[in-house]
Amino acid sequence: MGVVTEDAQNQALQTLKDRLATISDLRAAGAVLGWDRQTYMPPGGLNLRAEQLATLERLAHEMLVSPETGRLLEAAGEQPPGSEDAAVLRLVRRDYGRATKMPARLVAELSRASSLAHAAWEAARAASDWHLFAPHLERVLELRRETVGHLGYEDHPYDALLDLYEPRAKTAKLRAMFEELRTAIVPMIREISALPDEYRSRPLYGSYAEAGQETFGREVITAFGYDWGRGRQDRAVHPFCIDFGGPGDVRITTRFDPGWLSPALFATFHEAGHAIYDQNVDPSYARTPLFGGVSMGVHESQSRLWENLVGRSRAFWSFYYPALQKTFPEALGAVSAEAFYRAINEVRPAEIRVEADELTYNLHILLRFELELELIEGDLSVSELPAAWNARMEGYLGVTPENDAKGVLQDVHWAAGLFGYFPTYTIGNVLAAQLYEAAVLARPEIPGEIGRGEFGALRGWLRENVHRHGSRYDPDELVERATGRPPDTAPYLSYLKAKFGELYGL
Amino acid sequence: MGVVTEDAQNQALQTLKDRLATISDLRAAGAVLGWDRQTYMPPGGLNLRAEQLATLERLAHEMLVSPETGRLLEAAGEQPPGSEDAAVLRLVRRDYGRATKMPARLVAELSRASSLAHAAWEAARAASDWHLFAPHLERVLELRRETVGHLGYEDHPYDALLDLYEPRAKTAKLRAMFEELRTAIVPMIREISALPDEYRSRPLYGSYAEAGQETFGREVITAFGYDWGRGRQDRAVHPFCIDFGGPGDVRITTRFDPGWLSPALFATFHEAGHAIYDQNVDPSYARTPLFGGVSMGVHESQSRLWENLVGRSRAFWSFYYPALQKTFPEALGAVSAEAFYRAINEVRPAEIRVEADELTYNLHILLRFELELELIEGDLSVSELPAAWNARMEGYLGVTPENDAKGVLQDVHWAAGLFGYFPTYTIGNVLAAQLYEAAVLARPEIPGEIGRGEFGALRGWLRENVHRHGSRYDPDELVERATGRPPDTAPYLSYLKAKFGELYGL
Repeated sequence: MGVVTEDAQNQALQTLKDRLATISDLRAAGAVLGWDRQTYMPPGGLNLRAEQLATLERLAHEMLVSPETGRLLEAAGEQPPGSEDAAVLRLVRRDYGRATKMPARLVAELSRASSLAHAAWEAARAASDWHLFAPHLERVLELRRETVGHLGYEDHPYDALLDLYEPRAKTAKLRAMFEELRTAIVPMIREISALPDEYRSRPLYGSYAEAGQETFGREVITAFGYDWGRGRQDRAVHPFCIDFGGPGDVRITTRFDPGWLSPALFATFHEAGHAIYDQNVDPSYARTPLFGGVSMGVHESQSRLWENLVGRSRAFWSFYYPALQKTFPEALGAVSAEAFYRAINEVRPAEIRVEADELTYNLHILLRFELELELIEGDLSVSELPAAWNARMEGYLGVTPENDAKGVLQDVHWAAGLFGYFPTYTIGNVLAAQLYEAAVLARPEIPGEIGRGEFGALRGWLRENVHRHGSRYDPDELVERATGRPPDTAPYLSYLKAKFGELYGL
Repeated sequence: MGVVTEDAQNQALQTLKDRLATISDLRAAGAVLGWDRQTYMPPGGLNLRAEQLATLERLAHEMLVSPETGRLLEAAGEQPPGSEDAAVLRLVRRDYGRATKMPARLVAELSRASSLAHAAWEAARAASDWHLFAPHLERVLELRRETVGHLGYEDHPYDALLDLYEPRAKTAKLRAMFEELRTAIVPMIREISALPDEYRSRPLYGSYAEAGQETFGREVITAFGYDWGRGRQDRAVHPFCIDFGGPGDVRITTRFDPGWLSPALFATFHEAGHAIYDQNVDPSYARTPLFGGVSMGVHESQSRLWENLVGRSRAFWSFYYPALQKTFPEALGAVSAEAFYRAINEVRPAEIRVEADELTYNLHILLRFELELELIEGDLSVSELPAAWNARMEGYLGVTPENDAKGVLQDVHWAAGLFGYFPTYTIGNVLAAQLYEAAVLARPEIPGEIGRGEFGALRGWLRENVHRHGSRYDPDELVERATGRPPDTAPYLSYLKAKFGELYGL
């Protein structure tokens, strides 16, 4: 009888896996259509594409929430603890639970409200007119608070949203993490801001022909280990990395500014970091819930690691700067390696998050985290948001945004209802340093290799300890397995203090 | 009670249309994934993409053949004769009938056998070894004959296959059409072949830089009316045109040979002809069975019309030749307009269909049509095919293929089970001439406009009489509405006799 039960369990599990593979294919098809929309689709395709994407999403959703999925999940029972099958069931139960808790009406209203809010946000930002956006944000926020009610939470309502992007993350822990960062970083920024303004980043503006930027960027990420046989790079308005349900095809995009080196260069490193993660997940996880990054924060740790810990390091540029100079003799011929290194690491408190340096970046996130908490808790109203934004910008960075377009309206996230998403950027920064520290501890040759333009030891350690596992472990478990301890701000703060202390003589 | 019935009918029709829109979206998603596979997908994406395409196709098929579709088709009753709704029901009943007649096992076996046959065909063609392909072709043929048994037919088994590509086409009518063509064309080719060999097409080989070819081709098809806001042109190994379920996004591809002008130039005109058709279907037909061309033959008439009747005409080149000469001074500087016109219209019996001139092309098709009939009737075995091929090549064109790779193995169609498809190429040629004749009769300014590089009158007539109707009418009905009579070889034969009679002094 035990055998019969086990057979029935395994058959249910297999049927469930086939169903999940179909869902993965539908989502992957949506991803291909999304990639195309952002790279090559002619404008006339917009309406048709919206219908196609909505259909694919609806079918995948219907397949996930159908009672048949619930029946299979029940019939699949418990699989051996720690096994891949147990991980599959854990992830699907989580997603199925979430999806079935959400009323179809709410899902549809969120989709509709955020479409409208996105359009309103674009108009509001263009006109720097908060009032065009405010009523839409109110509606999206209301629906997100309703979402919290359906998803439920143990400690804090914000946890329900956080969990969508960073499984098992907790508001209380994040508060502590941000407090540690704030305490250390704010004084450093104050000290740096008090120094005479050298405008170190000036060399990054000049004559940077697109072709040279593209060739140089490709050369670097090829050395990082981005596999062109399983990926490609195209142009898009916003750089992104996208996968199609398996490691065989993971693409990145970038955009070029012929008068400014930084955006394409560091976005290319950044997106390649995401892509190398996805390209190195265990191939047998393709078309299963185990494929892809375990959380937004862990994914971001990989992009930040290659962008910042490698791509803004002295060791890296000691090798690559001569090649860059040769590529752009006009802009960089008279700029020393040291001046260039200082330029790409200039700390300059300013209003725009996506242009922020490594040090101030986290305060931009802290500000959003705090405002989101207050909005979700109901302590702050949407109408009070611009003033609260500006006050906090002044408090943390000593900067007042020129206008709302460059302040509270700068990010797309809230229009899309992505409350709980911003903290994952800082989680990424923290984990990048923790993982890098562990990698160097295990493979002390890493810094030397980077100085020779080699990245095999680092990539190998990351593949072995992070990438190949996909979503098999929860984020904290993955970090603990890889580094021997739970997520911890100490390595990141040491990194920031060492790097910027040296740069600014703090 | 009548009202209640009508309400129920309309509700069923609406539900059916929603279902059809979903099916259209799934197929369109498959088309986007297919386009990507042929243009930009990295090689590593192949396996994953095959799974995704199979899933999309399976879901669309399941949705079409489900009992729910049958129930809705019944409940939708009869809609007003001649109405768009009646046309929708007619098309869906046809597709539903076909799909439900085919056992799932046969569909799966066909898919599997043709995948294997395709791989075997590639190997066989590369090695010019018929025996590598023959057993696979036998299997595909067997399954196609089984298909005929399930689909059924009135007059001839081949009709069941023809109908898949050319609705309501009949073997008997095609026999008569080909007989009229053969009787007129074979003697012309004999006469031309007896003339001294001038190798007129020599000027088409030379230094033709890719960038120049691309710019010139784009300029021409822009003038034809290809709308870049609703399309794009990319590179692919085989040129094709593809739509995504509506007129808003219809793309073409081409390939360039820097030493030979013809392939890219005429393929660009050809694919643009297909695309202009799809771009001008009534926009309200998007995501319905009424979108897209009514048949392969009518679709081909549009590509051939722009490629041949316009793109290989004296009037067209009287305007465009100076620009082409300017683009390629090295290759064409010393070539007169007349010599160029003669080069692009050289009649030269040869073994390869896709490189054939307008006159010999139809005999390549006739040969395939006759062989397919005999294979389906059982009068010819697969093992006899190479000899039968070569004998007929000799009989019709006076040419013996150098080897099987350049003979019976040259086309991909049979490996895919596409018996009944080849005749649509010649139907396209015939209809192109008939439609063009009618267009000029209605708008006598057309030839003059073409001589000035203007195509508005021609395009306008085609849009009004052919394009906008999509699949609303059966092919013969569409042709009769547009030209006042059923499909007829006379205009095509007059065109060929006038053009090649003048060129070769026949």
